[in-house]
Amino acid sequence: MIMDRVEWSKQEKEIARRAFGAAYNRECTAILENVRKMSAESNDPTRIWEIHDYLAEKEKDIREKYDYRYSVLLTVFARLIWEGWMNQKDLAGISEDKLQEIRKTAEFFAGL
Amino acid sequence: MIMDRVEWSKQEKEIARRAFGAAYNRECTAILENVRKMSAESNDPTRIWEIHDYLAEKEKDIREKYDYRYSVLLTVFARLIWEGWMNQKDLAGISEDKLQEIRKTAEFFAGL
Repeated sequence: MIMDRVEWSKQEKEIARRAFGAAYNRECTAILENVRKMSAESNDPTRIWEIHDYLAEKEKDIREKYDYRYSVLLTVFARLIWEGWMNQKDLAGISEDKLQEIRKTAEFFAGL
Repeated sequence: MIMDRVEWSKQEKEIARRAFGAAYNRECTAILENVRKMSAESNDPTRIWEIHDYLAEKEKDIREKYDYRYSVLLTVFARLIWEGWMNQKDLAGISEDKLQEIRKTAEFFAGL
């Protein structure tokens, strides 16, 4: 499947947008939880620089990862599934050939 | 008083170093406390970007402010006193002419 020729129906786009948003929220929630723990568990005030560095890294990571161009979206979804931020059931309603491509790519990531 | 000609005795340097460290710790503690509040008070996961921006700003702010060169130290101390991170009593043992210079500069900041 040549990815930049993938066609997305209006309904598939809605499903994709919702799944993308849900994954983004899950990952941001996990980061917020980590920041809570990091800020709560130590009374060393210079801990703020660890939190600073952690958030700076995550900001870059998330900016690069959450790329909603349809030409790359199947790979993005595969990565999000592999990393655990997206569930396959979030994608129910997407065409079977796209789901297969996503699974295949997720398996490729898992094998790296 | 020409600042880059200020002479610091060994004892004054010890007092200055301790006061500088205490102010730095107070300010970092306040930032940590703000991060705790910001991360605790909202369940909106995108709050992490506010915390990110806040820490990025503070990192720059603190890197610029906590400049331990003796040529600028009286001005740095004046600013820390004016901002409330340093107490004048932290500086007990520093020569009276330096303390006067610090107070004068702190008053200048207060009048800006």
